[in-house]
Amino acid sequence: MSAPLENDILLRALAREPVPYTPIWLMRQAGRYLPEYTATRARAGSFLALAKTSALAAEVTLQPLERFPLDAAILFSDILTVPDAMGLGLYFADGEGPRFERPVRDEAAVRALTPPDPAGSLRYVLDAVREIRRALSGRVPLIGFSGSPYTLACYMVEGGGSEDFATLKRMLYSRPDLLHRILEVNAASVATYLNAQIEAGAQVVMIFDTWGGNLSAAGYIEFSLAYSRCVIAQLTRENDGRRVPVILFTKGGGQWLEAMADSGCDALGLDWSTDPAAARKRVGARVALQGNLDPLALFAPPERVRGEARRVLDAFGAAPGHVFNLGHGISQHTPVESVAALVDEVRAYSRKLRAG
Amino acid sequence: MSAPLENDILLRALAREPVPYTPIWLMRQAGRYLPEYTATRARAGSFLALAKTSALAAEVTLQPLERFPLDAAILFSDILTVPDAMGLGLYFADGEGPRFERPVRDEAAVRALTPPDPAGSLRYVLDAVREIRRALSGRVPLIGFSGSPYTLACYMVEGGGSEDFATLKRMLYSRPDLLHRILEVNAASVATYLNAQIEAGAQVVMIFDTWGGNLSAAGYIEFSLAYSRCVIAQLTRENDGRRVPVILFTKGGGQWLEAMADSGCDALGLDWSTDPAAARKRVGARVALQGNLDPLALFAPPERVRGEARRVLDAFGAAPGHVFNLGHGISQHTPVESVAALVDEVRAYSRKLRAG
Repeated sequence: MSAPLENDILLRALAREPVPYTPIWLMRQAGRYLPEYTATRARAGSFLALAKTSALAAEVTLQPLERFPLDAAILFSDILTVPDAMGLGLYFADGEGPRFERPVRDEAAVRALTPPDPAGSLRYVLDAVREIRRALSGRVPLIGFSGSPYTLACYMVEGGGSEDFATLKRMLYSRPDLLHRILEVNAASVATYLNAQIEAGAQVVMIFDTWGGNLSAAGYIEFSLAYSRCVIAQLTRENDGRRVPVILFTKGGGQWLEAMADSGCDALGLDWSTDPAAARKRVGARVALQGNLDPLALFAPPERVRGEARRVLDAFGAAPGHVFNLGHGISQHTPVESVAALVDEVRAYSRKLRAG
Repeated sequence: MSAPLENDILLRALAREPVPYTPIWLMRQAGRYLPEYTATRARAGSFLALAKTSALAAEVTLQPLERFPLDAAILFSDILTVPDAMGLGLYFADGEGPRFERPVRDEAAVRALTPPDPAGSLRYVLDAVREIRRALSGRVPLIGFSGSPYTLACYMVEGGGSEDFATLKRMLYSRPDLLHRILEVNAASVATYLNAQIEAGAQVVMIFDTWGGNLSAAGYIEFSLAYSRCVIAQLTRENDGRRVPVILFTKGGGQWLEAMADSGCDALGLDWSTDPAAARKRVGARVALQGNLDPLALFAPPERVRGEARRVLDAFGAAPGHVFNLGHGISQHTPVESVAALVDEVRAYSRKLRAG
């Protein structure tokens, strides 16, 4: 039996219930802009060792909560744990992004893919979830996450990050059958993985579709959204007697919000290119909205950060169903005092806004 | 007195007049996917020498027209000629994108900026325009172009390309007054530059806002669109007794089409993320639309390329006002036979589509 949740404002906002202030958490809030994160990572030896050592992953997950009164913790992990558990050999070259030793590029490699058993090769993630829940002791809810089936496929086929994902696109346009097969395996894997996180204690889950925005409108529906929808349909939607909300975030997906809102998710993540008022008008009251300050606005002096925070809050308005966040992960060189100013302003100004 | 225009189908489509088939040209159609381009570039010694030698720039401009029955030529030039002419020192590091020796990052550098005189430091561009017009001899119209004031500012402040343009964004959020000053100078410079191209013979002009999509919705209106609008308002709109249409293209700008359509332009360029039918519904008959095949679709076998071309044509439909193009510049390794198949299919299929 878990400790009762002291701060459930995130869950209430995601359920579009009235709340006294707008909850806030930040994508990549446990990250390199925090000196204590850098220290723990140095102890771990590498990013991957940090992500794979449950005790250290739990430690960094909690660090931002010690500094800022955030309304949620988000599991510290990598977006590519699932294909790594499939045996693709995830590694990080010095100062570069993620790469796979064995990218999935031909028919044989595609046929060989099978969904990993979370209790086996992903056990370190579930251990971290359990450890974080214990350490949180009901302070705030814990958000679990996964990359979307399409975003995982982007890395799996390309072998790493890319400006244009030309290898992936070549498969998409030349052999869509192969890509669909990868996406089926990914969707089954992600659903099982997220359910295991929920069973281990995740109270919210988020699907990060970082690269869905590189598709055409029709391609997005066919290759990304269809598989995120399939994941969402398979998820356990209750934990400790409360609904487990699902947040779907497609970076660059601002043109497709109506379709995304019909995916079965509870909330949409918005990047900073989307006008909040226009988004609300387009999706109506079907889903909550999360976002969407430009992460680089945090490079301004604190007083300007506060001004930008108020602009975002005003644009979303006082209607129920807004979770404050950045429009993308926080940047490495973000000044810590800007984050403090942001969290403080969102709390204070949204109280006034919601009190009318 | 210029030769009369034999193929004016692009101009008619941009004016939203009925046409027997959908005109096609390709962004970066004179480029590295063509062996003859690579040969001329090798003769020039470097990309910049090629762009700055009018006779060679004219030569490569005409090359794709010898291979494919395209409906327009577009001036071969660099997007950063204007800041180079301001004295910022454009150069290309080996295998990398453009860089400036003297980026504009502080108050003194901003105050020192002045619009260049096209007849002086940009004369090589105008000479190329005149030479191309002579060589075209009325075959198809010539499109001139410039980077948008905002996109030029991105490179000028950052000093080159960037994943997130953090330096530019820091100025935007910390010292918006400095950025506005740069944008004012850029808008005046771009207007003068495009008018000089029109006077030299450009029959259409296009504004490339490659980086406008990195802004927030409100930021786009304030820092990009306001200045493109200001450029458009100053343009000479007639040449040889015909209207000179203006095409505005913001990569990643699909959420802002309504505002863009009110900028005074004649046509909007669409990247491949925008659904053509949805775009037409949103902007009505105010502007023509240009686009929007994913450039990487050209990596598929020719038969699949033809299928993708038909999908795009069907999505735009038979209403007047569509110019076929890619959603971004053509990629370096594109197979030439895919381009041939694309141009052929667009011509043949759009004739049928438009014949009803």
